[in-house]
Amino acid sequence: MNVKVISRITGLTILLTAMFMIVPLLIALVDGEPDNASAYAFTIGLMAVFGLLLVIFSRGRDRTFYAQEGFAATGISWVVMSIFGALPFWISGEIPHYIDALFEIISGFTTTGASILSDVEALSRCNLYWRSFSHWLGGMGILVFILAVVPEARRSAGSGIFLMRAESPGPSVDKLTPHLRQTAMILYSMYILLTLLCIGFLLIGGMPAFDSFCIAFGTAGTGGFAIRNSSMAEYSVYLRNVVTIFMFLFGVNFSLYYLLLIRQFKNVFLNEELRLYAGIAVSAIVLITIDVFRIYGNVGEALHHAAFQVSSIMTTTGYASVDFEQWPAFSKAILLALMFIGACAGSTAGGLKVSRVLLLLKSIRRTVRRALHPRRVQIVRMDGRVVDEETSNNVNAYLAVYCAIFLMSFVILSLDGYSIGTNISAVAACFNNVGPGFELVGATGNYGHYSDLSKLVLSADMLLGRLEIFPLLVLFSPDTWSRKR
Amino acid sequence: MNVKVISRITGLTILLTAMFMIVPLLIALVDGEPDNASAYAFTIGLMAVFGLLLVIFSRGRDRTFYAQEGFAATGISWVVMSIFGALPFWISGEIPHYIDALFEIISGFTTTGASILSDVEALSRCNLYWRSFSHWLGGMGILVFILAVVPEARRSAGSGIFLMRAESPGPSVDKLTPHLRQTAMILYSMYILLTLLCIGFLLIGGMPAFDSFCIAFGTAGTGGFAIRNSSMAEYSVYLRNVVTIFMFLFGVNFSLYYLLLIRQFKNVFLNEELRLYAGIAVSAIVLITIDVFRIYGNVGEALHHAAFQVSSIMTTTGYASVDFEQWPAFSKAILLALMFIGACAGSTAGGLKVSRVLLLLKSIRRTVRRALHPRRVQIVRMDGRVVDEETSNNVNAYLAVYCAIFLMSFVILSLDGYSIGTNISAVAACFNNVGPGFELVGATGNYGHYSDLSKLVLSADMLLGRLEIFPLLVLFSPDTWSRKR
Repeated sequence: MNVKVISRITGLTILLTAMFMIVPLLIALVDGEPDNASAYAFTIGLMAVFGLLLVIFSRGRDRTFYAQEGFAATGISWVVMSIFGALPFWISGEIPHYIDALFEIISGFTTTGASILSDVEALSRCNLYWRSFSHWLGGMGILVFILAVVPEARRSAGSGIFLMRAESPGPSVDKLTPHLRQTAMILYSMYILLTLLCIGFLLIGGMPAFDSFCIAFGTAGTGGFAIRNSSMAEYSVYLRNVVTIFMFLFGVNFSLYYLLLIRQFKNVFLNEELRLYAGIAVSAIVLITIDVFRIYGNVGEALHHAAFQVSSIMTTTGYASVDFEQWPAFSKAILLALMFIGACAGSTAGGLKVSRVLLLLKSIRRTVRRALHPRRVQIVRMDGRVVDEETSNNVNAYLAVYCAIFLMSFVILSLDGYSIGTNISAVAACFNNVGPGFELVGATGNYGHYSDLSKLVLSADMLLGRLEIFPLLVLFSPDTWSRKR
Repeated sequence: MNVKVISRITGLTILLTAMFMIVPLLIALVDGEPDNASAYAFTIGLMAVFGLLLVIFSRGRDRTFYAQEGFAATGISWVVMSIFGALPFWISGEIPHYIDALFEIISGFTTTGASILSDVEALSRCNLYWRSFSHWLGGMGILVFILAVVPEARRSAGSGIFLMRAESPGPSVDKLTPHLRQTAMILYSMYILLTLLCIGFLLIGGMPAFDSFCIAFGTAGTGGFAIRNSSMAEYSVYLRNVVTIFMFLFGVNFSLYYLLLIRQFKNVFLNEELRLYAGIAVSAIVLITIDVFRIYGNVGEALHHAAFQVSSIMTTTGYASVDFEQWPAFSKAILLALMFIGACAGSTAGGLKVSRVLLLLKSIRRTVRRALHPRRVQIVRMDGRVVDEETSNNVNAYLAVYCAIFLMSFVILSLDGYSIGTNISAVAACFNNVGPGFELVGATGNYGHYSDLSKLVLSADMLLGRLEIFPLLVLFSPDTWSRKR
């Protein structure tokens, strides 16, 4: 294990996160809130010192960097970034309990959007901004950002792909170009461009500038932190439709936008994951529209809310256009099922990802065929290409460890005594990075009533969900810390 | 597809099931219930005609019999046996709705023990007997019984192993002896012996003879149909302890009892599945005892009920010594988690089976190790032997299809409007062949309030759970019915 290179990456992560904190610091100054400003200033200072020390003292010539280092660097960076990122909420006194602040920022970075706050509007603008911006930063990933902008990352050429694999969602990573730094830059450029487009459309609809930025950050990162207690319910139909469409767009694999740019339309159109993603979304919208028609009495409104909520839950964003806790059980069950499926790999969304679901379905079919015709060779293909055994095995192991963590989290949460529905949907909403669940943690509820132990378990689930388990799992593997390779 | 041999096996299944119906017919005659007696007599007559026609008209020389035929014969036999087995309940008028009767007998054969009846004690003894006996027959499997007793099964030597694989629970089948018929006979002899032992211990404790037989059938098959409305709550502590121990014993792989008989004690002691099974059971009992101590106020009673309920739920039997719906959420969550794990492969229990859970955990560890050391060969071992890739792949695909069916069933059940906790535990309890769930389908509840659609879905889940999905799945695969092999 190359500890020095991991320390260097962690140091860079801290420095970069601190840099992004300058914006909320400025907002606090503009709003004339010296206490908040000093909370951010103190945190930035602390992080600068800590980050610089790590970077300086971890200089070394050893360029060893494999999967092990990629996983460890990603896992440690995310944990450390969260520990520091929670400080402003806590120091400013607006979230007086540190574990709550930690839950909130992990929910932000992991683009979950689950909150312990019952009154979001009581937060000052600097904290609201930092909360929403954490979605944007965590969405595409801070290590991918480092790969894109830090020249040093270019030099250690081997390290990039392992970092990107560890941080990017989905069963495999597409290298868009031979140079990884270029890939990272393309991804971030498209991410920024789409975010700006979203902000533009919101501004056109008359949304205040501050709201537009925050809502766009939450949409782009498929996070879901709102800045109003009613989430998106008070905005106009136009604004909600803009968000519906952009949530869906941010749930698409970003590689496909690149393929559009270089005019490979056929590959985009034939992409199996995109087709299934759109197919599931449309089916869910139709079923829910029929089911909630009796509540709204007209197709237009039923369709509007069904589309918003499906787009929000399937992309694991978690904005609410309405208190869907009041919807019939069937619609709620569909939303709960969508939480597990999630959106596309290589997007900012959480959940299992549509491509994993597709690979799992294909592996079921292969197993049935193998049982029927043991002597025939059965191959799994995706988008016309053969899926190698390792990817299949990884996807299967992912489901197994996913189920195991899910069950354990549910049992620990039950210590607090809430209902099965509350606990299962809380784990589902946090582990899949959705945000709101059902019953006590529904659209109008929050996670504040859980004990500290449960909040820590849910925080761990959010990190495990965002980083897709393995980067954090290897931190606890004895193999990682043994000296022999 | 060799349709003739499948028809022949189905015919034999019908004839054998009809033969077992003679006992409830005699009970009805002894009890002086001519209506019930004629219900059984009519059903037996109908099955005899139907079964004989199938056997006679399916004679043929084609001995082709592979996995395909094994799966199809098992799936079809179980469905047909259930359709006929439900008739006496319906014709006797004691379960006036046929779908309810079907639910009840599928719950019996699959050793689930979920009931649509709110008043079990209103049934006559012949129906109570048939209900409980269906557990015993379904527990070890009717096709295994056919293999053991029908001489014709010996002749088509190839067919046996595929039938046994399709009907026996667990990721693989142990052939105890080179001759399959002998294996089937050994398994059934031990099953009968253990059942008789259980009956003996219950009689010694003063349980009435009729009760002893019925309760022993439910224990042996890990079914859980009780003959009193309070399940096991009215019996003495001694009787409940006998049932606790026997439920646990029937959750052990029967091959291990054979190893004990031939004095291979070391192999039994070192068996990984048995160790994990016992380990999980003991841990769960300790945790629940601590949790329910505050209810009972003394360790003895807390331990008694904890042990009974853990043994009952983990072996997917479903007897209740107490209304565990009133227990704290933590204890209920542990019980819910145990439903998914289940007991050992090669036993009469349901659930995923401990050996599958073990293989899944090992495949997770292998994936982590592979990610860390891509060039090192990683092998999964169980009881010292290498687990081949096919078994690993099958277990992984099993989990995937299990999750998919679970989620779909949950969504369909939600159409009836009950809570998430009721619906999830209903699917968990039926799919894992447990019986009682939580909330509306808890220890004192039943499944009668669900719609016909939901009852059919849950019936399908019970069959899918008992036959471990694939035998029924292949019936719907186009590959099965295509002419080319």
